[in-house]
Amino acid sequence: MAQKKMILDLDTGVDDALAIAYAVAAPDVDLIGIVSSYGNNLLDVCAKNSLKLLELLGQTDVPVYKGLPHSSTSDHFDVMQVSKDIHGDNGIGDVDLPEPKRALEEMSGVDFYIEAAHQYGQDLIIIPTGPMTNLAAALEKDPEIAHLIGNVTFMGGALTVEGNVTDVAEANINQDAKAADVVLRSDLPLTMVGLDVTLRTLLTKKETQQWRELGTKSGIAFADITDFYIDAYYNLDIDKNGCALHDPLAVGVSLDPTFVTTISLFMKVIYDEHNYGRTIGDKDRLNDPNPNTKVAVDVDKERYLATFMDLLTNLFKEH
Amino acid sequence: MAQKKMILDLDTGVDDALAIAYAVAAPDVDLIGIVSSYGNNLLDVCAKNSLKLLELLGQTDVPVYKGLPHSSTSDHFDVMQVSKDIHGDNGIGDVDLPEPKRALEEMSGVDFYIEAAHQYGQDLIIIPTGPMTNLAAALEKDPEIAHLIGNVTFMGGALTVEGNVTDVAEANINQDAKAADVVLRSDLPLTMVGLDVTLRTLLTKKETQQWRELGTKSGIAFADITDFYIDAYYNLDIDKNGCALHDPLAVGVSLDPTFVTTISLFMKVIYDEHNYGRTIGDKDRLNDPNPNTKVAVDVDKERYLATFMDLLTNLFKEH
Repeated sequence: MAQKKMILDLDTGVDDALAIAYAVAAPDVDLIGIVSSYGNNLLDVCAKNSLKLLELLGQTDVPVYKGLPHSSTSDHFDVMQVSKDIHGDNGIGDVDLPEPKRALEEMSGVDFYIEAAHQYGQDLIIIPTGPMTNLAAALEKDPEIAHLIGNVTFMGGALTVEGNVTDVAEANINQDAKAADVVLRSDLPLTMVGLDVTLRTLLTKKETQQWRELGTKSGIAFADITDFYIDAYYNLDIDKNGCALHDPLAVGVSLDPTFVTTISLFMKVIYDEHNYGRTIGDKDRLNDPNPNTKVAVDVDKERYLATFMDLLTNLFKEH
Repeated sequence: MAQKKMILDLDTGVDDALAIAYAVAAPDVDLIGIVSSYGNNLLDVCAKNSLKLLELLGQTDVPVYKGLPHSSTSDHFDVMQVSKDIHGDNGIGDVDLPEPKRALEEMSGVDFYIEAAHQYGQDLIIIPTGPMTNLAAALEKDPEIAHLIGNVTFMGGALTVEGNVTDVAEANINQDAKAADVVLRSDLPLTMVGLDVTLRTLLTKKETQQWRELGTKSGIAFADITDFYIDAYYNLDIDKNGCALHDPLAVGVSLDPTFVTTISLFMKVIYDEHNYGRTIGDKDRLNDPNPNTKVAVDVDKERYLATFMDLLTNLFKEH
């Protein structure tokens, strides 16, 4: 099976942790690096969480790069209380994982994007599941990469349903709507995996119990991490029936687009005060040919969940 | 061919005039009546326009019923200047048509809806192409009709693109967002033909010239009426490439759903001040089975336009 070169751009985060596990478990992926973002926690915390999770899964050869510490339109970032409520104070469900042995890379995440785009071109898949600050900065530093990268499948936005931060804004887009607009209006081939589909794709404690019963370090840790998230969904009344598989769904869709039904549009992101963070089709380009974005609007959640559980459970058996 | 019983609910209007022509021309339609609404003009003007157009097309046997004169949340209605700019002061491109010989019906449009729903049940198609005030009032007067009517295909709303009155509101929904919410949240089987598809379906003067060249009364009148609208689209910079076939597209889709690609959702309409008139999927019902609304998100505009021109040109030859 030809392996795709994948970069995850994560604000790790519980569902980001599940995205790492999915990418590590999928046989057709060569995870060449993780770029860190701020969002569910501070940049440094998110970066270290990624290293910890990679080591938990035996992936000591995957480098982690630091991206930018705050949005393109601000000079600092504070973690929102709701992020701590959902992901825990430490971002990974208040589960203690050992300090990582591997250090963060010296190279910036932005430069890593540019280098990888030139090195791998169409074989490169990028999966941003947090703010799009890093990718927007890379596009601004080297606009040519928009024509090199094979695909960007991002978790973010909401087209056919309301947002989860405001009535129009989804959390990742809301962190840096201007950066998201830069990415969406670029020539990059994009797939949007937004609330339209991720809120349909739920995990319950019935599944995490299967991981716990494996008795392995990773099985128990991932069960604990994810149960925190499922409890938060319940207690904050986000969904009483389970937690949304936001970020790992994006990884799954990048590898098997048939998990979702998509519509093709040129998209834009509103970043002025009124309806900040809204992701919407660009009416001015409605009749232009070859829209660059496939927006997922429906999902085969049963088949996705079966694949997700198969991959992750087998991975957790080994570590 | 089994004829479907069709009721049009129109605020006639240039594109409403084209919807009448499409319904009259389609061989599989029994147009059992037109309910009048306010919107592109005052109720009385719109009602009379429908009568005039029916007589122009030789349809003196189609009754026209008066609906309600203003929205469910106001006590009067004034025509917006932009409506006059787009549809002309008289609603039909400032083209003078003879006073109609037939009178309006005594029965109210709301009661006609209820009577027809009980009489025809699943054979009945309703096509609202203006505010949904009348249909909402009928649902409130006799909720049972939601389970009787075969299909409601409405022109209105915008899901994947911005609105045309505000950034979220399409004009028909904007007239009475609360009534639209009543209809969309009902159990009616709905098809939404919104700006998502109607702004992709354009008519130009190349086509209207074919009608004019027929030399018939209706061919010349419809060419003049529609050219006013095409000019307005150009002058108001709505679209320089032609006018949108909003209302006749809804009629076409009700008869041949394969003109469009749809996604299935439970929809709602926002009617508080913030984002008044927004049509959006109901997140609370995202995982409920059997959504009642099919939202058109793409259109085979070439095939639709060919069918539209075939039907209307043949009709205008005869009158």
